[in-house]
Amino acid sequence: MTRLLDHITSPKELRKLNKEALPHLAQELRDFIINIVATKEGHLGASLGAIELTIALHYVYNTPDDLLIWDVGHQAYGHKILTERKAQFHTNRQLGGISGFPKRAESIYDTFGVGHSSTSISAALGMAIASQLKGENKHHVAIIGDASIASGMAFEGLNHAGVTDADLLVILNDNAIGIDPSVGALKQYLTNVKKGTQKQDNIFEALNFDYSGPIDGHDIFAIITELKRLKTIKGPKFLHLITTKGKGLKQAENDQVKYHAPGKFDAKTGDLLPKQKLSEPPKFQDVFGYTIVELAYKNNSIVGITPAMPTGSSLKYMMEELPDRAFDVGIAEQHAVTLAAGMATQGLVVYCNIYSTFLQRAYDQVIHDVALQDLPVIFCLDRAGIVGEDGATHHGAFDLAYLRCIPNLIVFAARNEIELRNIMYTAQLGLPHPIAIRYPRGKGSIIDWKQPFTKIELGKGSTLKSGTSLSILSVGSIAQNITEAIDLVEFDKQKIGHYDMRFVKPLDESLLHTIFKNYRLICTVEDGCMKGGFGSAILEFAAQNDYKNPVKLIGIPDHFVEHGSVNELQTELKLDAKGIAETLQDFIQQHL
Amino acid sequence: MTRLLDHITSPKELRKLNKEALPHLAQELRDFIINIVATKEGHLGASLGAIELTIALHYVYNTPDDLLIWDVGHQAYGHKILTERKAQFHTNRQLGGISGFPKRAESIYDTFGVGHSSTSISAALGMAIASQLKGENKHHVAIIGDASIASGMAFEGLNHAGVTDADLLVILNDNAIGIDPSVGALKQYLTNVKKGTQKQDNIFEALNFDYSGPIDGHDIFAIITELKRLKTIKGPKFLHLITTKGKGLKQAENDQVKYHAPGKFDAKTGDLLPKQKLSEPPKFQDVFGYTIVELAYKNNSIVGITPAMPTGSSLKYMMEELPDRAFDVGIAEQHAVTLAAGMATQGLVVYCNIYSTFLQRAYDQVIHDVALQDLPVIFCLDRAGIVGEDGATHHGAFDLAYLRCIPNLIVFAARNEIELRNIMYTAQLGLPHPIAIRYPRGKGSIIDWKQPFTKIELGKGSTLKSGTSLSILSVGSIAQNITEAIDLVEFDKQKIGHYDMRFVKPLDESLLHTIFKNYRLICTVEDGCMKGGFGSAILEFAAQNDYKNPVKLIGIPDHFVEHGSVNELQTELKLDAKGIAETLQDFIQQHL
Repeated sequence: MTRLLDHITSPKELRKLNKEALPHLAQELRDFIINIVATKEGHLGASLGAIELTIALHYVYNTPDDLLIWDVGHQAYGHKILTERKAQFHTNRQLGGISGFPKRAESIYDTFGVGHSSTSISAALGMAIASQLKGENKHHVAIIGDASIASGMAFEGLNHAGVTDADLLVILNDNAIGIDPSVGALKQYLTNVKKGTQKQDNIFEALNFDYSGPIDGHDIFAIITELKRLKTIKGPKFLHLITTKGKGLKQAENDQVKYHAPGKFDAKTGDLLPKQKLSEPPKFQDVFGYTIVELAYKNNSIVGITPAMPTGSSLKYMMEELPDRAFDVGIAEQHAVTLAAGMATQGLVVYCNIYSTFLQRAYDQVIHDVALQDLPVIFCLDRAGIVGEDGATHHGAFDLAYLRCIPNLIVFAARNEIELRNIMYTAQLGLPHPIAIRYPRGKGSIIDWKQPFTKIELGKGSTLKSGTSLSILSVGSIAQNITEAIDLVEFDKQKIGHYDMRFVKPLDESLLHTIFKNYRLICTVEDGCMKGGFGSAILEFAAQNDYKNPVKLIGIPDHFVEHGSVNELQTELKLDAKGIAETLQDFIQQHL
Repeated sequence: MTRLLDHITSPKELRKLNKEALPHLAQELRDFIINIVATKEGHLGASLGAIELTIALHYVYNTPDDLLIWDVGHQAYGHKILTERKAQFHTNRQLGGISGFPKRAESIYDTFGVGHSSTSISAALGMAIASQLKGENKHHVAIIGDASIASGMAFEGLNHAGVTDADLLVILNDNAIGIDPSVGALKQYLTNVKKGTQKQDNIFEALNFDYSGPIDGHDIFAIITELKRLKTIKGPKFLHLITTKGKGLKQAENDQVKYHAPGKFDAKTGDLLPKQKLSEPPKFQDVFGYTIVELAYKNNSIVGITPAMPTGSSLKYMMEELPDRAFDVGIAEQHAVTLAAGMATQGLVVYCNIYSTFLQRAYDQVIHDVALQDLPVIFCLDRAGIVGEDGATHHGAFDLAYLRCIPNLIVFAARNEIELRNIMYTAQLGLPHPIAIRYPRGKGSIIDWKQPFTKIELGKGSTLKSGTSLSILSVGSIAQNITEAIDLVEFDKQKIGHYDMRFVKPLDESLLHTIFKNYRLICTVEDGCMKGGFGSAILEFAAQNDYKNPVKLIGIPDHFVEHGSVNELQTELKLDAKGIAETLQDFIQQHL
């Protein structure tokens, strides 16, 4: 079936094809992606929408000498398949397999590693300026979506590029949607441009780009013609393409949000395969989503904010129920946090939901706009810790370390769904400080999670199990693995204590004094980086109070963690029950 | 002389004046500011340029019920004086005095604390949405400069505001300069608008703002008329004012960079007072500036980047000498870092100079674009540690903690000018990883700093003084205070050792083993936050290697540090020689 594609390993072969063969290749490439993603899972819609563009780019440009820089990278499956990774594509996002995103270490065609959005223009401009300085004659193309270009960082790149004479082409892959539909004034503006109701003298021209478009992003001949023309033009150029996310698979075109990353589906019909729907514990995301709605109905001051993740965070439930009080601000984490700060000055109770890895984008705003002013903003840090298949760019590994050093901020990790609900309830009762509430991606462990609310005392840990010799201190849902690990250790279980410290800051010093006095050995466990994290906080407490107990830290070591399932990665990092048990065993043998 | 101003304590009195009296008041307010800043120092030019706007805003709007949000805050001196702080204004930026920036804790008229740029639109929008939800009828005005509005975060705020119907007025105070002249395509665009060569259908209208202007920002009657009109218009509005930085003081208008914060000057003539110019040690900034030029002449791959701080960082020397290879990208820290990453992929040796406090703005880019890809970008972190009069928004207190948790990153602190030079030299010889080089604001200690370059071995600390019982480990220029502190301690000096660990990461473990084995007591000292910082790294080492030595941490405690001179603040924090000596003394008495 895939006759043309069979003969293409790299763009070299692609460029030997007659132009007329390319639509057929596009069809084959679509089928190839659909067939594999249907069973192996992954991001679907974005790549389907960029097939013609991908082929045209490698056809017109002399890759890898000319440099393509894909923004975010959800759309780069076609690119991967055409650049020497067709045979590996079935390993996409799996442990040891290729990454779901472009990655420099993986291929010379992946010029810049991505995963977070809106970096492509800056990176491409850096490469283009380097080319100029080195006297090279390379072309540089950044391909960015309409959701990503609305982020501040992309604007900064455009603003700089516009006053250079670098050989840079920015291609706007405009499908009017990111993971969720795009929002904001720029999106409205782009819609007007498409409709022809916006004059030619446009924002990108105002920023000194040579603008062309909008053109049909699925008309491969039109794209090729335009790219060839643009190759001859010097300086910063901007090409506006209109595409359809999910193009070529009816269901993916019709339900673009669901088919962004649909899970398993029938490659022939496109229908999603039924997921197991027995009574099972909820996703932490849904606990957040349902709980904020429940609380918001009782407390009129509550509002919710998400930067472009209404579906992923489940804030969508509130957006549906209370649309005036739930805000999707687009890919704009910086704005999201300072908007929250502004609202908090006026007495609103703001739940600002940001994935742990993306809060890195708003670090200064957390410090400068929220914590310094001690505004009681409630940060809900979704997808904290190991996230799985999205890999190194997406793990929420650093939050405890980078948040713990910020004065005034309360830092809490939810052990389970009930704890998440209760801290969300507690937070809206009135906080003396801002709080960061951390919880993991995916399912919890409690089916009957919707219990009456209970107030959590700030700064108080809880005893999960008492013991006498070895005390394990943990925060967050990793507690589950510890419970299982205790069963595996060859040691009198009675002697092992386990405490959910809950708060990384402020620490429950009273509980810690009791623990350090009553146990000889202390072990800390966290689903986060060890350097500067929760364990490090415990060491500071011990040093300050002159405790000499041996303390063993367990957590994510000092390297970036690649992709794989959460279970596989936990095993690799020795954060699964077995791994933790082994570490405990060694620690016990060494000291007792 | 200041007859009108004498009778004005708050905007209430101001609003009783006849409009005709306001130009006279403007003159008085200018004189008042000039007279005090001439002797007390502070930011001058921005406030002089915003006098008419400041008076008009408080005249037209019902402050503090209506909310003014000043961006950055350099321009807010007039606002402070008119809002109940005239009598305190002579204490501006001094220990215990009023802050140089708007600050919520200081006045009900200061609606949002600032210091870092480009936050005002997001904060004001948050307030405006809160007003809507609460059913209030308040006006919200963000006042932002042309350098600040070009930052990505401001764009994110505009992009969101444009699709709301919030009562928000954004006033662009366009003087074509930040601290240094503004750069970028938006600045060019604004210049064209001013010249009338840009059509009315402009960027801000495209973002759905009701645009008016440009109008003369020193014509107080024109401003008042326009503000009154804008008060009656619903939804997001944009007013473009053209102002002159330093307006009213000839020298400040003519040399806007120098008179941004001119130090002491003659209030009558405007001439700067001569600074002591005996042979004295250079500023660390100049060591950076001269050294990068020296290295760049020898190494063609070297480039330099600053986000809007060519003068402050002294990258201006390279911009003058090698303009093709030194880049001021404007207030765009995120872009600066990813631009550097892009350049590094092409083999350039990039020195990316960012103030420690502003690197918080690019935290994700350091992690995701540089460290994850292990690109050997050289970050020069200026103004690390306590910075003095700029206060809580500007201290570089958190960098060691927030950088230490990032895999791959090398973290170095320069003890003195020669160390800074040598690490800069070493870095361009070829690094296996990215590096962050931290150094303080202001003068070093070595007059004869321009020594031949010496390579620094990565990860190697150095012995400043050997001892037997108490070992002091430090990083950075705080070593000077420790040397003095050792003299003050009542203890056999022979017994005290002092080591400059240089690298917070990787730690010199070999040296640490020697130290932990040979000294009973360990004390760490850093000019940074203790939570998660250098001392915390030492505790992790000790725990991992089962050392039981008492370890005492000295550094910045877990609260935000206010403004004052560096010496005063160090004294307050017990980081001066005397304070460190006292802590050492206690530590010794407790344990020896």
